Amino acid sequence: MNITCKKNELIGAISIVSKAVDSKPQTPILSGIYLKAEEGSLELHATNYEIGLVVRIDADITSGGTIVVPGRYFQEVIRRLPGEVVTLVHDLEDMSISITSGSASFKLRSMPANDYPVVKEVDGNLHFTIKDNTLRSLIKKTVFACGTDPARPVFTGCSLEVDGTKLTMAATNTHRLAIKEVIFDEEIGKIKLIIPSRILNEVLHTMTSEIPTDIHVSCTHNSISFSFENFFMTSRLIAGQFPDVHNVIPPSFTSEVLLSTQAFSSAVDRVSLISRSNNYNIIRFEFAEDSLHISSKSPDIGLAEETIPISLTGPDLSISFNAQYIMDVLKNIDSEKCRLSLGKNAYGAIAVREEKDNSFIYVVTPVRTQN
Amino acid sequence: MNITCKKNELIGAISIVSKAVDSKPQTPILSGIYLKAEEGSLELHATNYEIGLVVRIDADITSGGTIVVPGRYFQEVIRRLPGEVVTLVHDLEDMSISITSGSASFKLRSMPANDYPVVKEVDGNLHFTIKDNTLRSLIKKTVFACGTDPARPVFTGCSLEVDGTKLTMAATNTHRLAIKEVIFDEEIGKIKLIIPSRILNEVLHTMTSEIPTDIHVSCTHNSISFSFENFFMTSRLIAGQFPDVHNVIPPSFTSEVLLSTQAFSSAVDRVSLISRSNNYNIIRFEFAEDSLHISSKSPDIGLAEETIPISLTGPDLSISFNAQYIMDVLKNIDSEKCRLSLGKNAYGAIAVREEKDNSFIYVVTPVRTQN
Repeated sequence: MNITCKKNELIGAISIVSKAVDSKPQTPILSGIYLKAEEGSLELHATNYEIGLVVRIDADITSGGTIVVPGRYFQEVIRRLPGEVVTLVHDLEDMSISITSGSASFKLRSMPANDYPVVKEVDGNLHFTIKDNTLRSLIKKTVFACGTDPARPVFTGCSLEVDGTKLTMAATNTHRLAIKEVIFDEEIGKIKLIIPSRILNEVLHTMTSEIPTDIHVSCTHNSISFSFENFFMTSRLIAGQFPDVHNVIPPSFTSEVLLSTQAFSSAVDRVSLISRSNNYNIIRFEFAEDSLHISSKSPDIGLAEETIPISLTGPDLSISFNAQYIMDVLKNIDSEKCRLSLGKNAYGAIAVREEKDNSFIYVVTPVRTQN
Repeated sequence: MNITCKKNELIGAISIVSKAVDSKPQTPILSGIYLKAEEGSLELHATNYEIGLVVRIDADITSGGTIVVPGRYFQEVIRRLPGEVVTLVHDLEDMSISITSGSASFKLRSMPANDYPVVKEVDGNLHFTIKDNTLRSLIKKTVFACGTDPARPVFTGCSLEVDGTKLTMAATNTHRLAIKEVIFDEEIGKIKLIIPSRILNEVLHTMTSEIPTDIHVSCTHNSISFSFENFFMTSRLIAGQFPDVHNVIPPSFTSEVLLSTQAFSSAVDRVSLISRSNNYNIIRFEFAEDSLHISSKSPDIGLAEETIPISLTGPDLSISFNAQYIMDVLKNIDSEKCRLSLGKNAYGAIAVREEKDNSFIYVVTPVRTQN
C-alpha cells in the first residue's frame, strides 16, 4: 500500500470508525483499524463483533493493499500531523506503516490484515430506504426509554416492526414506554426485530446531513445494516420477544391537559433538584383546572414547589412520578405545547404526546406514595 | 435575613466561593456557604481551612443577618431559578432559608452561622499592590513547574521572595525549575515564603479583569491574602525552606539556539505521542547548525521523527529530555521565538528563555540515555 489522502477526510473517517474500537477489545486485532486501498478510495473498517463501521474516502493510490493499524495511535498521530495531505506506505519488511505529512514522519507497527474480521454489508431479505431525518426522529423519540439491565436484554434495544406500509419503533424499561410510527408511501414487507440501543445512538450521532439524505436499511433475522453516502454500519440484533406495546397503552383516559413544554420541563428540572436526593426521585403533580402545582420534598434537604398555568379538561388529579421519566420525554418533544392524558386515579399510567402529532406516544406509570 | 439580589451576580459569586467547598469537607459545616447581609451588600464566604474565599455583591436588605446554606444545593438551585431577581429569607423557626424567584420557590435546611469559621482578611506585616496581569504572569510562568509529591511539601508551592524592589517567584520539582522576576518602582520590604500551588491556580483563574486592576497582597509568616475588587482570598502558607534557586542555574552555557516556539512546541507534541508510552517519556534532540532533529521510539509502537529549522551558535549537541518538561515550558512562552542555552555535554542542564525578556528562565536537567 502506498497512498495519499486529505488529512481532514482521514481524521473524520477515523473519528467515526473508532467508535467501534473498544478500549479493552476481545482480541488484540480488534484494537486496530483495517485499511483497504483500491480504485481511488481508502476504506477504514472497525468492529467489536457487536457493531461494525466502514467509511470510504477518496485517495490517490500508487499501490493498493490492506493493513491493520493500531487504532488509538493511528488516530492520535493523524490528528496532529502538520500538513494537509497524508502519505501512508506499508512497509512489508518490518510489518509497519509509515505516515508522513509536512515535516513529520512516523512509523507505527502494524498487524496482519488477513487476521481481521472485515465488516461486510448485510444482504438481508428485507430492504427499505428512509430519509436520515425520519430515521433520526424515530430513534430520538424512543431510544431514551430503553432499559439498561443486561439481565433483561430485550429491553436494552428498540423494537422495529414493519407491517406493510407502517414502521413502528418502540422502547420500554417496563416502567415507561415510547412509540413512534412512520407511514411509507409503498409496502415494504413484514418484519419484527430488536436493535441494540448502542447502534441506534451511533446512527443518531453519525448519520446526519445538511439536506435530507437516503439511508438504506437491510435486515436479516439476526443482523441489520444502515448505509449512508460513503459510510455503512452493521449490527447484531437482540434475540427474544419484545412485548406487544399496544397492549400497554390504556384504552381510555379521564382528563386531558395542554401545557407549555418549555415551562413544564424547566419547572420539573428545578423541582427535581430536591427529589434527586431520594431513592425514587419522586416528584408530585397536582393538576387543577388552570394550574399545575409541582413539588418535592426531602427531610434532609428541604422542599421545592412551583405552579405553572395549564388547561385541564376533566377532573383534578394528584399523582407522583419518577422525575427523570418525565424529564426524559420532555427533552424529546419538539412541539411548543404538549398534551398529557390522565387516568381516573393516581394509580393509572398517563400518556404524553406532542400537541398535534399523533405518531408519537409516551406512557409512564406513576409511583405509589402514601399521600 | 430578608434580602433581594440579582440572580446572575449571585451565580457568579457562588461559582467563585464554591471552589473552597470540598466535596468531602473536614466537618459538616464546611459543606456550607456562609452568607452575611448588611449595609447594601451580601457577602459569601467559603473555606476548607487551607484557603478561604469571600465575594461581596450588591443586595437590597430588608433585614440583615447571617446564615450558612448547604453549598451544593444552594448553587444548583440558584443556577436554575427562572427569574432575574432572587429573594432570600431566613426562617428562624425551622432553621431554613427560603429562596424565591419568578414562579419557583425553594426551602433549604440551613446550618447555624455561629459555628462557621468566618474568613478574615490577613493583616500582615508586609503589604504590596500589584497589577492583576503582572501577578498572573508571575504565576503562569512558574506554577506549572511545581512538584506534586505531598511527602515533599516545599516543592508543591511557589516560592515568593521580596527583596527591596525585586519580587521573584520560583517553582521546582527538583528536575526542572522556573523563575520569573518583577521589579517594582519602590521598595516593598523583605520576605520569603512558599504559597501553595492550589491557591495560585485559583488566583490565575479568578482574578482576571478586562483592564489591569490592582490586587492588594498582604502576608504574615504563615498566611497570605489577595484582595481584588469585591473579592478576597486567603491561604495558609507552606512551612519549610525553599532551595536557593539561583544556585541551580548553570553559571555558563556552551551553545545558544534560537527557534520558533510554535514549530518547536508542535513538533515535540507530535513526537512525544510515541514516547508517552514509555516510563520516562524520553524524547531525543539532535541540535546541528541549522536544524533540530527530534525523535522518539518505542519497540512496541514504532517511531516518530521530525526536523525543524533553528539557528545554533556553538557546537552541536545530542541530548534527551522528558518530553513533558519541554512541553510544559513551551505552553508558557509568550514570545514568537524562544532561546535555548545548551551545556557542553548531554549531562548538563539547559535553559529556556523568551527571545528578548530576561525576567524569566526555565532550567531542565536531561535524561541520561545509553546512546
